[in-house]
Parts: sequence; C-alpha cells; structure tokens
Amino acid sequence: MKKHVKKIADAKPAAKLVKGLSFQDLLLKLEEYWTRRDCILQQPYDIEVGAGTMHPETFLRVLGPEPYRVVYAQPSRRPADGRYGENPNRLYKHTQLQVILKPAPADVQDLYLESLAAVGINLKEHDIRFEEDNWESPTLGAWGIGWQVLLDGQEITQFTYFQQSGGQNLDPISVELTYGLDRIASYLQGVDNVFDVRWSETVTYRQVRLAEEQQFSAYSFDYADAVSTRKQFDLAEAESARLLAAYASLKGPQKKGFPILQAYDLCLKCSHLFNLLDARGAISVTERAAMIARVRKLAIRVAAAWLEQSGGAARDAAKVVA
Amino acid sequence: MKKHVKKIADAKPAAKLVKGLSFQDLLLKLEEYWTRRDCILQQPYDIEVGAGTMHPETFLRVLGPEPYRVVYAQPSRRPADGRYGENPNRLYKHTQLQVILKPAPADVQDLYLESLAAVGINLKEHDIRFEEDNWESPTLGAWGIGWQVLLDGQEITQFTYFQQSGGQNLDPISVELTYGLDRIASYLQGVDNVFDVRWSETVTYRQVRLAEEQQFSAYSFDYADAVSTRKQFDLAEAESARLLAAYASLKGPQKKGFPILQAYDLCLKCSHLFNLLDARGAISVTERAAMIARVRKLAIRVAAAWLEQSGGAARDAAKVVA
Repeated sequence: MKKHVKKIADAKPAAKLVKGLSFQDLLLKLEEYWTRRDCILQQPYDIEVGAGTMHPETFLRVLGPEPYRVVYAQPSRRPADGRYGENPNRLYKHTQLQVILKPAPADVQDLYLESLAAVGINLKEHDIRFEEDNWESPTLGAWGIGWQVLLDGQEITQFTYFQQSGGQNLDPISVELTYGLDRIASYLQGVDNVFDVRWSETVTYRQVRLAEEQQFSAYSFDYADAVSTRKQFDLAEAESARLLAAYASLKGPQKKGFPILQAYDLCLKCSHLFNLLDARGAISVTERAAMIARVRKLAIRVAAAWLEQSGGAARDAAKVVA
Repeated sequence: MKKHVKKIADAKPAAKLVKGLSFQDLLLKLEEYWTRRDCILQQPYDIEVGAGTMHPETFLRVLGPEPYRVVYAQPSRRPADGRYGENPNRLYKHTQLQVILKPAPADVQDLYLESLAAVGINLKEHDIRFEEDNWESPTLGAWGIGWQVLLDGQEITQFTYFQQSGGQNLDPISVELTYGLDRIASYLQGVDNVFDVRWSETVTYRQVRLAEEQQFSAYSFDYADAVSTRKQFDLAEAESARLLAAYASLKGPQKKGFPILQAYDLCLKCSHLFNLLDARGAISVTERAAMIARVRKLAIRVAAAWLEQSGGAARDAAKVVA
C-alpha cells in the first residue's frame, strides 16, 4: 500500500452492466463473501449512528490485542445530508456495508477487489483507482490512514487503516472497508437516481425509502425543537458521565460487568443529537467545537474504560514487561 | 388454520441433529428463503425496540391497503429479561427474524414449514405443534390471533394474524412470523446453553454477546438513574406529542412529507425507556398502567396520522362509497 494511487486497468468508457444485482442481493452477496473469509456476520447497531464505524463492533473491537473479523450493514443517519428525497444521490439515511479485519491482512487489497468481482464488476472493463483520503472522526477520537476507491470516477468504498480509536493507539492495526451500498447498487444497475434502484426484483428503493427521506429531512431542518433536543443531549451526556465516574471509583474485580457499553450507547445518542442540532442550525460556530469536544470526551473515557475492563491494557502492559 | 393444534408428524424422541447451521448461516438461509418468496430484505431498525413488531416495517406497513412482504432480523432489547449472561436461555437482547406477508397468503403454513426444512429441520423426525397463543401489545395498540410453534416442545416461532395495529382495524390482514433465532440455533446445534452456540464456524455466541448481556443487565437492574430516565421519557413523549399536534393543525396538501415517522421514533424511545424504568423497579403498579397508556396514546395517534398521510384512509373511504 505504498502507492497512493493504484490503477488496476486502463481507463475505458464504462461498459454498460446488464441489469445488475438488486440492492438486497448486492448486500447478501457481500455479506456472504466476507463471512466466507472468516468474518462473523453482525446486525446493524440499534441506535442511530452517522456511520458504521460508530457501531461497538468497530469502535470497541479494534481496541486491544484480540483478533476479530466482522461484517455488517449499517443504515447511517446524517441529518445535514437529507434533501427531502429530492436529490438523486444525497440521503439522510444511507446504507453502509462495513468490514473490519483485525489485524489487517497483507492481501486486503486483493480480497477487496475479489469482492467487487463477486458482485459482478468486471475489473478488466472498469477503471479502479485508490486515492489517498485519510479519515478522521473528531467526535470519536478516531483517525486512520486511508484511501477512497473510485470506480469509473465514482467513490464506492472507503479503505482505512485505523491508527486510533477513542484516543487509544491501536496495536494491531485494523483495516476497515466501508462500501457505499446505495451508490454501488445505482452503478451496477446503471441508474442515475438512487430512488430508481431496484431494491428487490419487484420493489424500488423509492417505494421502500422515499417517505423516510422526506420526513426525516423535514424534521432535521424544519421541525426539531432545539430546546428539547439540547435537553436530551444534556441528559444523555450526564448519564454517560455519571456511569464513567462510577466505574472509575470501583476497584479491580468490582469493575467486571460494569455497564461501560451503556455509557457508550449514551455517547452515541449525544453524537446523533448533536448532528440533529447542527442540521437544524441551532448551534453557533463556537458552541459547535465545544459540543464536539464534549462527545469526544465521553468516547475517549469509554475506550479507556473498555480497554481496561476487557484486560486489553493489562495484557499490553504484560507484553511490554515480557 | 381452524385447528388450534396441528400435529405434523408422530412424536418421537428428538433425532440428534449433526452439527447444525451456525447462528449466522441460519439467519442468512432464512433471509434468502423469504427473499425468494417475494419478501424485500430490510435491516433491523436503528432504535432500541423490544420486538421486531415495533419496526416501522411492521407497525406502519400493515396499515392501509398496499400489499407488502418483508423479512428482517431485529435484535430485541427487553431489560426485564436480562440475566447478567448467567441464564442459559434468558437474554436482555435476543435476535428475532421477522417476516410480514400482506395480505396473508392461504399457504402460509406450508411456506413456514418449508422454511424449517430449508434450515435442516427434518419434519418427519420431529414433532411440530401449533398451539393457540393470541398476541397483544398494549403499548402499540396492536393485537392478533396467533399460534406459537413448538418444535419437540420448545417454542421456536410465533405466528400472528394481525387484527389491529395502532388501534386501526386492518384490511387486508397481514400475517407475521417471528422466529426466535437464538433458540432455533441452540436447537439445531444440540446445545443447552445459548452462549455455547456457534455464531460462525470459529466464534461462539459467548465471544460475541456475553459482555453485552452482563453489562446491559447490570444497567437495567442496578445502575440506571431513574430520575434521568424519567426525564428522557418525558422529553421524548412531549416532542412526539408536539409533532402530532402540529400535524393535526395542518390542512390537506401541507400534511405531505410531515415527519410522522419522527413522532413514531420518539414513541419507540418512550417504550424502551418505560421498559428500562420497569426493570429498574422504579415504577409503581398504578403508575405502570398510566405510562403504558401514555405510550399507547402516541402509537395510536401515529398510526392514524400515517394512514391519513399515506392516503390509506382516503382510499378505504372511497372503497366504501364505491
């Protein structure tokens, strides 16, 4: 992965794909592909998140020394990206397919390219480029070295080697692949408007998802009560911080089974409520930075507590001594 | 479906299943099976719910006249059912596979039995019974006529013909199949403890899920702050009610695109927060009924508004006139 631009095949005019996979078959094929490469299959997290990275199966599993491989879809809500269902590509809620390989295998790029072949993308007929695009999440205290993958010029996947999560340096390094399923399905089916995508053989993306796009956009931009949303944020933050303080006051074995995961759920709620307030135009520029810092503070304390509780920190320390 | 007990085969001692499907393969096989029978594949809802029925893909889609078929998994959180990961079968969060067929087809029982065969249950070697078990959700204003399906005496699926959802009489009637995936996987693999289930070929259910069970049980029974949880409930209820009142004040075309779905999300939050308070022992007997009624009131108003907004009510009225 030294080269930051890798070209797999000569650029050609895009060959028309004949009736590509439906949205749901694309998802199933990719899940199958990765489960056959030792990933466990997980379900999306059942709390609103802005990206698959925020699922505990990424944010927490990349911490510590234990190897792990997982694949899951994650409907990702981004209030500021909503367009009332009127934009052909921008969505309030898009579906990511997330793959975590820990540690990152040497052949990850080949594995990824094979996955494209598995869903019917003929690599000899299309132009694939890897463009450097490092990734950072200020609210999660997470960042990585990464690439975006362009298929005939359209971004279809983000590739990231995680360096930190929750402010913790990671060892081993995990690699994350995030497929933009809505966009890949549009591409495979040769449609310009995501709402024209066939979800299944008989039902369109429009039939399944348009009302959500219209209504959640309207809530985010026009209807959300800023005072109530702010109070919800404050309550979630205070409850998360209270848990983290209680955890810190416990000694050794008492820490076992303490609900750090709940503190994290509450941190995720803060993140979503912040995004909602931001879309609603209810946050000033100076307050914006302060709120991001408040969410990050929770995320960093959660990661440290989780690592300690699961024995990751202790084992790491032992390794250093050995 | 006249008989309330149907026996498919003579009872025999349960034949040992040789190394049944892993948890994830069971899920994938059932999703595949139902997508081939015209169900669209959906993802779990990204808000904490107690059952797959609460997903808008059931609660709202069963309203109105449009045919619909959908399958999805739903991790379902039931705070009072948590056992700190120490009980072999009771879980804070179990995984349901939910199928909705609207209208209910005449051959639904055959379709269901074929799905069992598809995951490796030999119907000739096992005892399958349908026992009458009507279903009701007071918080959702929903009920149905139903059966539980027992496989060698263990409940593995709930079968329900919905009569009402959100207080609305349903026409056509939808049928809901809810598979208890954790229990079916235990059964297929011949293990007594769900934590011994193979999630994949190499990873156990324990490795994936034990920490969640320990920690969310601890939060529900020992750590949740009742005052904060109650305030979160009040805020979600008030914001949902505010939206519903605003919707009611709009005229005709203004109602299009109004965020009823957000009012429903907030109703779901109330439901989960109520369950949490209940598990925490923070609700008196009299208050319990009052809180259930508060959630139901939201659910009923959401269903009526959704039906009106999506044109279901108007179309139904037209049908009556015609």
